[in-house]
Amino acid sequence: MAKKDEKRFITPKSEDASQWYTDVILQAELADYSPVRGCQVYRPYGFAIWEKIKAHLNGRIIATGHENCYYPLFIPKSLLDKEAEHVEGFAPEVAWVTHGGGKQLDEPLAIRPTSEVVIGVMWAKWLQSYRDLPILHNQWANVVRWEKATRPFLRTLEFLWQEGHTAHRTEAEARAETAKMLEQYRRHAGEDLALFVIDGIKSESEKFAGAVETYGIEAMMPDGKALQSGTSHFLGQNFAKAYDIKYLEEDNTEQYVWTTSWGVSHRIMGGMLMAHGDDKGLILPPKVAPVHVVIVPIARDDDRPLVLEKCQGLARRLREVVYDGAALSVKVDDREEFRPGYKFAHWELRGVPLRIEVGPRDIEGSTCIIVDRLSGAKHELQVDYATYELDAESVSAKLENLQAALYARSREEVMGRIHEVESYEEFKQVIAEGRGFALAAWDGTAETEQRVKEETSATTRVIAAEPPGHNVKCLFSGGPARYRAYFAASY
Amino acid sequence: MAKKDEKRFITPKSEDASQWYTDVILQAELADYSPVRGCQVYRPYGFAIWEKIKAHLNGRIIATGHENCYYPLFIPKSLLDKEAEHVEGFAPEVAWVTHGGGKQLDEPLAIRPTSEVVIGVMWAKWLQSYRDLPILHNQWANVVRWEKATRPFLRTLEFLWQEGHTAHRTEAEARAETAKMLEQYRRHAGEDLALFVIDGIKSESEKFAGAVETYGIEAMMPDGKALQSGTSHFLGQNFAKAYDIKYLEEDNTEQYVWTTSWGVSHRIMGGMLMAHGDDKGLILPPKVAPVHVVIVPIARDDDRPLVLEKCQGLARRLREVVYDGAALSVKVDDREEFRPGYKFAHWELRGVPLRIEVGPRDIEGSTCIIVDRLSGAKHELQVDYATYELDAESVSAKLENLQAALYARSREEVMGRIHEVESYEEFKQVIAEGRGFALAAWDGTAETEQRVKEETSATTRVIAAEPPGHNVKCLFSGGPARYRAYFAASY
Repeated sequence: MAKKDEKRFITPKSEDASQWYTDVILQAELADYSPVRGCQVYRPYGFAIWEKIKAHLNGRIIATGHENCYYPLFIPKSLLDKEAEHVEGFAPEVAWVTHGGGKQLDEPLAIRPTSEVVIGVMWAKWLQSYRDLPILHNQWANVVRWEKATRPFLRTLEFLWQEGHTAHRTEAEARAETAKMLEQYRRHAGEDLALFVIDGIKSESEKFAGAVETYGIEAMMPDGKALQSGTSHFLGQNFAKAYDIKYLEEDNTEQYVWTTSWGVSHRIMGGMLMAHGDDKGLILPPKVAPVHVVIVPIARDDDRPLVLEKCQGLARRLREVVYDGAALSVKVDDREEFRPGYKFAHWELRGVPLRIEVGPRDIEGSTCIIVDRLSGAKHELQVDYATYELDAESVSAKLENLQAALYARSREEVMGRIHEVESYEEFKQVIAEGRGFALAAWDGTAETEQRVKEETSATTRVIAAEPPGHNVKCLFSGGPARYRAYFAASY
Repeated sequence: MAKKDEKRFITPKSEDASQWYTDVILQAELADYSPVRGCQVYRPYGFAIWEKIKAHLNGRIIATGHENCYYPLFIPKSLLDKEAEHVEGFAPEVAWVTHGGGKQLDEPLAIRPTSEVVIGVMWAKWLQSYRDLPILHNQWANVVRWEKATRPFLRTLEFLWQEGHTAHRTEAEARAETAKMLEQYRRHAGEDLALFVIDGIKSESEKFAGAVETYGIEAMMPDGKALQSGTSHFLGQNFAKAYDIKYLEEDNTEQYVWTTSWGVSHRIMGGMLMAHGDDKGLILPPKVAPVHVVIVPIARDDDRPLVLEKCQGLARRLREVVYDGAALSVKVDDREEFRPGYKFAHWELRGVPLRIEVGPRDIEGSTCIIVDRLSGAKHELQVDYATYELDAESVSAKLENLQAALYARSREEVMGRIHEVESYEEFKQVIAEGRGFALAAWDGTAETEQRVKEETSATTRVIAAEPPGHNVKCLFSGGPARYRAYFAASY
């Protein structure tokens, strides 16, 4: 809806990244607030980005042997109550349906905050023999968690996500699955969204309610805070025992399965948007950009028909170019009511990776100007406007370069903002000044974690793979350090 | 989960189509009942069919200029109450969320039974100028309607669907949109699902709550009942006025928009499954079949390795064949624990369009047997088992023929069961004996409709395009006939 743009104004990201984020989401028409607190509307451009993200992640899930399915929205209260830790963790966030069909229900129905429960009940019904294992299911669904403070994409009451659920014969196989999907999430963030993330195991206090172990990927936002962007849970036999998910082994004994679950939500999209943008607006990684190239005609009234015709011809030609396994998405901005400068700003705000400008002199000179959204660099591209012959590979190469450059920038940014701190004083500074993640030696106790959280607002994000050296002391308690952990304030 | 199959048993369709349907849905592992009444679980094979249907219908929606987006699950009660007819129609079916985050909510939230309301509220917020029109939105979502009697796919409390919502400057444009999407639905049913449907306008009593006019497509089930399989509503300015959806016209006057909405749910999948199957199970139209070809090795222990190797090679070759714009989906059933006859039944139950059988003698003779699920006809196909050279086009031609034959059969079946009745006596026989649809002259009054419904259980499905001749009398009241309408009992 073009008219809104005329009032466009976004706070520079360099001044206030948080306000910039809200401004961009609204002004670029990605999402809007709905009449229900904390529930967002996905407008077409925002939803198109989400559909691209979904296609990439879904491809990884299917390629690793999982099958899509769909389990119901509702969970009867009595079933939710069966896994004690799980219900304790989720009960405060549940929305309850109490009336339906004009009557009060005999039993309240929870709107799924996650689907381990209803899936567990079905598996217990279906599963018979070891031949039925593994079960490798995934669903794309909406879930509801009654959050207090909300922000578009980053934290909403209703959110869209995928949740994978698997059951295995052995502990080792379930642990391998947990690790495999964490790795897929890390690669999805890096290769598809150009987001460098830190991955690792979560502390006991930060793990999923009902899990034995939770692993996660954490992205770093411009204010130095962490954004948990995906989690993979090894559930042991907790849900198997609570929901009686058993099978007959080859040796004729009845056994409980070992289960996992793992999820990525639209939150990762919020993180991607916030990480890559600049003062002009979004910068979309080409792999998830709904529009790869926008062509802006530079014309006055008398040469408009010719210029528009050449722009359309160029667009047709570019749509024959294959990028990331599909046709390039090309848009000609032929709106008569706006000037080129306005259009440049419009598409920069929306993060379109490449802009092509075509004016009468370009046509005469058999060329066009191509501008890269990340660097802003302008290049000339030769075009034969009779045949539309051009160096198509240089266009897809530009997209590939932009994707790679965004990732490299993300990696450099995050690596440069991980501070291996030597004292609690230094730790506090890193956190208070929003300098990034603090990597600190920690005694591994929940008490220390809790104290640090109260004193600094930082929590453990994930535990580093490399343990502390011999005789290293915990930064906070002075006791023996058990882990090195990444600490940060978080969204 | 293979083990379940050993208990397989389906009621022959020729004996009891209704029981056959339930048996097939459960035994072919398309769906199952969940712990919540009326809410189904989509198992992977059933969901894969739904994903194929969705891809085809989504393609049509996008190709006709619409954009996907996503609006929230919840609608505050006060907003739902604004369009009087709409709320009156839907209130009895609404599920209400009354508690969230451990507290009673200030205002109950309806779970969307359809999204005109929340969409209307957002449009009123966004819409400014005539330049913003038309708005052409679509969403794929879950909705909830508290139904009494439920059946998998055909009628469930929670169901998956797409709902299109559009806003236009003029009445003519909105009416054209309503007609365009009805036509897309008719073509989707016919061309993608091989379902011949009757289309037309609904009577006043059968229209959507809040619409000016509702159009629908109606499929015929084996028991002669109608299944409403898609509807397209011209909403006039009813929602525009209730939700204040206005814009500034070119002449600077404020105007209400004209809106439409249209939806197809997983119900159409149920109708497709029921219409095409036979005593052996499902028959899937190739365009929506998750597996196009299953290869069954016919081998004893000593020749198993060779036969399996050749089956895998053949599968690899067939996966290079393009059908309906994508790679052929080919499965080799290499399970050792089952005999070929069992496997034939397994895949027949699941409706896989083509089966290929490969045994040692086929390999020697450079051939394989290919069997068509619809006709059961067996043909030999030449295969060079060294190079896997074969006539790939004959395989995709078989799929195209099967798709066309299924549609032709559906068309013939439906056309043969439309009875242009001359008396109420004949009408009653057609309905009571489940012979199909009765096409009858009707005075067009709701009173007559109501009487016929009470006396025969049949309702008007759609009104025929061709009006009754001059001086034709209503079959029921003896008054002047206003319309010719299709009557049937319905799901």
